[in-house]
Amino acid sequence: MGEHPDFDGWVCPAPLRDTPTIVMGHGGGGAMSGELIEQLFLPAYGGAARADLGDSAVLAVPGLREGARLAFSTDSFVVRPMFFPGGSIGDLAVNGTVNDLAMSGATPLYLSTAYILSEGTALADIGRVATAVGKAAESAGVQLVTGDTKVVDSGSGDGVYVNTAGIGIVPAGVEIGPTRAEVGDVVLVSGDIGVHGIAVMSCREGLEFGTRIESDTAALHGLVADLLGTGVDVRVLRDPTRGGVSATLNEIARASGVGIELVERDLPIPPEVKDACGLLGLDPLQVANEGKLLAVVPADGAEQVLEAMRRHPLGSGAARIGRCVAEHPRMVVARTGLGGTRVVDLPIGEQLPRIC
Amino acid sequence: MGEHPDFDGWVCPAPLRDTPTIVMGHGGGGAMSGELIEQLFLPAYGGAARADLGDSAVLAVPGLREGARLAFSTDSFVVRPMFFPGGSIGDLAVNGTVNDLAMSGATPLYLSTAYILSEGTALADIGRVATAVGKAAESAGVQLVTGDTKVVDSGSGDGVYVNTAGIGIVPAGVEIGPTRAEVGDVVLVSGDIGVHGIAVMSCREGLEFGTRIESDTAALHGLVADLLGTGVDVRVLRDPTRGGVSATLNEIARASGVGIELVERDLPIPPEVKDACGLLGLDPLQVANEGKLLAVVPADGAEQVLEAMRRHPLGSGAARIGRCVAEHPRMVVARTGLGGTRVVDLPIGEQLPRIC
Repeated sequence: MGEHPDFDGWVCPAPLRDTPTIVMGHGGGGAMSGELIEQLFLPAYGGAARADLGDSAVLAVPGLREGARLAFSTDSFVVRPMFFPGGSIGDLAVNGTVNDLAMSGATPLYLSTAYILSEGTALADIGRVATAVGKAAESAGVQLVTGDTKVVDSGSGDGVYVNTAGIGIVPAGVEIGPTRAEVGDVVLVSGDIGVHGIAVMSCREGLEFGTRIESDTAALHGLVADLLGTGVDVRVLRDPTRGGVSATLNEIARASGVGIELVERDLPIPPEVKDACGLLGLDPLQVANEGKLLAVVPADGAEQVLEAMRRHPLGSGAARIGRCVAEHPRMVVARTGLGGTRVVDLPIGEQLPRIC
Repeated sequence: MGEHPDFDGWVCPAPLRDTPTIVMGHGGGGAMSGELIEQLFLPAYGGAARADLGDSAVLAVPGLREGARLAFSTDSFVVRPMFFPGGSIGDLAVNGTVNDLAMSGATPLYLSTAYILSEGTALADIGRVATAVGKAAESAGVQLVTGDTKVVDSGSGDGVYVNTAGIGIVPAGVEIGPTRAEVGDVVLVSGDIGVHGIAVMSCREGLEFGTRIESDTAALHGLVADLLGTGVDVRVLRDPTRGGVSATLNEIARASGVGIELVERDLPIPPEVKDACGLLGLDPLQVANEGKLLAVVPADGAEQVLEAMRRHPLGSGAARIGRCVAEHPRMVVARTGLGGTRVVDLPIGEQLPRIC
């Protein structure tokens, strides 16, 4: 057991040293989240953890028919407020885990739900959240099979936290993963960027825009099925949630060892999102999405996948936004309108706390 | 979708009416927890939920070899303090979910871990919790395969909450479930009762006893394997956590439609637990255990199962404590030393809040 560090006499490793306590940025899905996993959780877990410990795992299970594998994923949701334009913490909890499963090419089957409720929360609010969970599960075709409820004293919680875990089956022959992007591949996005984050922020900050912005929360496994139905060898699928398109593409670039070049004018960013980001000082590429996917596909199949996406209601705004290049490996850059380029960094911490 | 109630104009059903907001008792694992599930969560989930929505689910999975099934379970842990005599929230999080899987006869394989951390929590404390998770997983032979970390602002959380979900395989032919108890069956417990709850309470309240009481937190799947190895048709297995032996036996009596009669003098309650319960005004039968199991087995196999338990280090204190009877169906009673009987009620709310 000597491989687990002793945290009683522990010295913070360098990347964590400036913040010996938890700060909001550790939950942002960016560089600080990555450091916490790599420098603290993985060493502490030692030999008991899989080396990647990612958003979802694709697992061998004894007795499963040859070639098929089990997908398994979990997420906790702490979004505030619980109800926001276009959805609630209940929708996110179902769609978020369904999407993590779908991004490995799995057909989602079963979900667990676990609640941490604060003393004093109205039962009617919990009922509204649970109804949203039920409707989202029904709509995604997954069954809610097991659960748990804990209560913490008022002052120790914040209304409702929801955790979901999910199980799906990855069919034989489907191999999708963040390490598979290759130089020459094309990067697609299934629609408008930044909508969920701005919907939550606008209601939290009381901002008014010309058009009401609603969260894009949706279950994407149907879209994924259509996209895999093209027969194109899809390399990577990911839903750009916390940390946005920027965090997700940086992770793919690092995992695959390629550079990624975006074309700024091709990014589908709605004017309301652009305006709100200008007002709040945010980069739309770092804003969370809850109903969009990024796909990396071979160049000769890109048009076919794009057409399949656009035929699906959740992919009608799909666009080609960039490509994988040999230059600047492990980095993401954007070609600006002026013919220059800028680096699209992995976000450090959290620009929009508690967005999911 | 008309089957989901509308909580905007919702009227509390009778059993919840006295408490239109969440109270600590809703998290106690007793009658109030049951009402919340039956009167609020299940109606809200509608057709998306399995009718039982229990501690763990045994599931058909397409492609799984005939007869084998998947076990799936989840629990969130909010115990306070995070570290207590004999363990920590990290040990509970692994052993609790491993045990829920084991109680369906499954071999546990994979766990997810999801943390909700409060801003300001020391990284060294999180490291100690994560190390406990790693060591417990290693010791139980399960792999930590996927995870999530969220951060909430200080004041909205309480250090560390941990959720685990787990997957296991139930071999063909194993059928264990709370509805299978039959009149004539014998009730066994694997060892001393009430130890975990009193260990946590004693450190929370600063109580001193002659002997230091340590939590019994342990993974029980090895004990279950030995017990199933006897070939006896084990009907029900359950770990009596929140709500204690009392809540668990009441649930089994109700699910199976039998009465259960305990013999009070046969209950293995250590003197320290008796003393502490006297002092705190608690019933040892309602105190949480985290490393014990209750087994309902046919009378003619009881001795064999008891011997198998006693040969295992985690079952050395195993005892026969009662039987299933035709009288008083769906009720649990205890025969007292004086020749009388008393009703062992399902606990209403929570006598020891945040015990797991």
